[in-house]
Amino acid sequence: MDIFFLGTGAGMPAKLRNVTSIALKLLEERGAVWLFDAGEATQHQILHTTIKPRRIEKIFITHLHGDHIYGLPGLLASRSFQGGESEVTVYGPKGIKEFLQVSLSISQTYLKYPLKIIEIEEGLVFEDEQFSVEVRLLDHGVPSFGYRIAEKDRPGTLLVDKLIAAGVRPGPVFKKIKNGEAVTLEDGRVLNAGEFVGPPQKGRVVTILGDTRYCENAILLAKEADLLIHEATFSKGEEKLAFDYFHSTTFQAAEVAKQAGCKQLCLTHISSRYDKAAWLKLVAEAREIFSNTEIAEDFKEITIPYK
Amino acid sequence: MDIFFLGTGAGMPAKLRNVTSIALKLLEERGAVWLFDAGEATQHQILHTTIKPRRIEKIFITHLHGDHIYGLPGLLASRSFQGGESEVTVYGPKGIKEFLQVSLSISQTYLKYPLKIIEIEEGLVFEDEQFSVEVRLLDHGVPSFGYRIAEKDRPGTLLVDKLIAAGVRPGPVFKKIKNGEAVTLEDGRVLNAGEFVGPPQKGRVVTILGDTRYCENAILLAKEADLLIHEATFSKGEEKLAFDYFHSTTFQAAEVAKQAGCKQLCLTHISSRYDKAAWLKLVAEAREIFSNTEIAEDFKEITIPYK
Ligand SMILES: [Zn+2]
Ligand SMILES: [Zn+2]
Repeated sequence: MDIFFLGTGAGMPAKLRNVTSIALKLLEERGAVWLFDAGEATQHQILHTTIKPRRIEKIFITHLHGDHIYGLPGLLASRSFQGGESEVTVYGPKGIKEFLQVSLSISQTYLKYPLKIIEIEEGLVFEDEQFSVEVRLLDHGVPSFGYRIAEKDRPGTLLVDKLIAAGVRPGPVFKKIKNGEAVTLEDGRVLNAGEFVGPPQKGRVVTILGDTRYCENAILLAKEADLLIHEATFSKGEEKLAFDYFHSTTFQAAEVAKQAGCKQLCLTHISSRYDKAAWLKLVAEAREIFSNTEIAEDFKEITIPYK
Repeated sequence: MDIFFLGTGAGMPAKLRNVTSIALKLLEERGAVWLFDAGEATQHQILHTTIKPRRIEKIFITHLHGDHIYGLPGLLASRSFQGGESEVTVYGPKGIKEFLQVSLSISQTYLKYPLKIIEIEEGLVFEDEQFSVEVRLLDHGVPSFGYRIAEKDRPGTLLVDKLIAAGVRPGPVFKKIKNGEAVTLEDGRVLNAGEFVGPPQKGRVVTILGDTRYCENAILLAKEADLLIHEATFSKGEEKLAFDYFHSTTFQAAEVAKQAGCKQLCLTHISSRYDKAAWLKLVAEAREIFSNTEIAEDFKEITIPYK
């Protein structure tokens, strides 16, 4: 489970930061990549990574501003050209369907895979045995969603060495123990599953927010997240400007991480008004409030370890 | 009058060639840049050039395939962010208006300059005292236009030295001569305007074609052009493939330039199946038929000199 930043800028592409797109790599977990937003030239950024477009299973759009969606039609079209055949589901605010349908049909783009488009409202937008994805509205002038991606707890691993030491050979008994069943061996001994299975592995939580002012729903979505990705379009002290443009400052992003009891914070959506030298200052501002803070850069990867 | 290639690839962005966009720089002529097509990330390419988005006056779209239009909404939006205030006119096939209107309105993009969208048919699509732009349909499965941009002849320059040698001082007489009027001087001499003005400067012609099979209208549009920009998606010998996919080979592009009596040919829309080493072969194939041939590369510039 890794976060890979494809675009970390605000509003417009700049030389050092493309417009927004974030990949959540779930390669070990499900052989898949989930994208969050797809600003223009997201597919160009992907060209310079090891991400395979055919691995993209889901694309979650936070809001419909151009710097978050204009790369979507081209990405979907190229995935088809490149032989992607598995279904893709796009989640996003009302309007995403019309945008995609018009873009694809006017350009006479016929995808060779099924495309599902789901216009979302607050609540649970996806759940299976591995993950749940919950969304809430943020505060950005247009409907902008935050996503809380929660991995489910996984049963502990089988303590193979301990079983073998107890004289059990690999086979059906292993399976029963793994399923949590008590097993009576031929010699009459009863094996208690709990003793031969490690502790359950706690699921990890990543929260990825769309553009927003400082708001309560951000804190709820980020509750005890292992990683919170929060926009920081402005530096500390620019709270008035941030409010007027429906954005956040470094300080406000850090405040959300602190209130929510997150493990780690990564700032993104950095305005091109801040040059490379200023990035250190931005991250230092946030660290005054929340020490475990990083600042995103295009092509930066963050691994989210098991707890 | 210079051609600047922003994207020269086919179908999908590749590392060495972005999808199609060609700038016609008319900086001396009218302080403007005209774009032909705007594939995804055209604005990103522009970031690495001296082209100022606010100078873009007209955008001509050849056809609606995604690799020729997906960069248009972002380019128009960023031009506004960057303070562009002068009108932009977009010319293109029927459908371009809906694509732009839906893309801009769903993303709530409000341009700070007037945007005019003209859905074109065959004929003259633009004319003023400097230039005319004529279009014809090519052969590409979907409506694909070719553009013939013709500069008007300009009156010759005033032969200032010769006038001064004849004893005339700069002033109203100079102006009359420049306007082609005969002038009677105070001493009774009559100056014939024709003798004091150089020969008229012949207007230049550039022909920029959309994707197409080899076709008659391409030859008509390219008639005696100073520069023909023709797609060459496939190499010589792949005529069957080119026909099936509504494209041209290097050989066919050269044949058009030859039939039309062009001065120069530049091949573009090069498939990523051809690596850098193969480009030389492609251009060599065309030169067998039409010697003054070049192959486009991203960021290559071709100046079109006066005749
Ligand atoms: Zn944004
Ligand atoms: Zn094309």
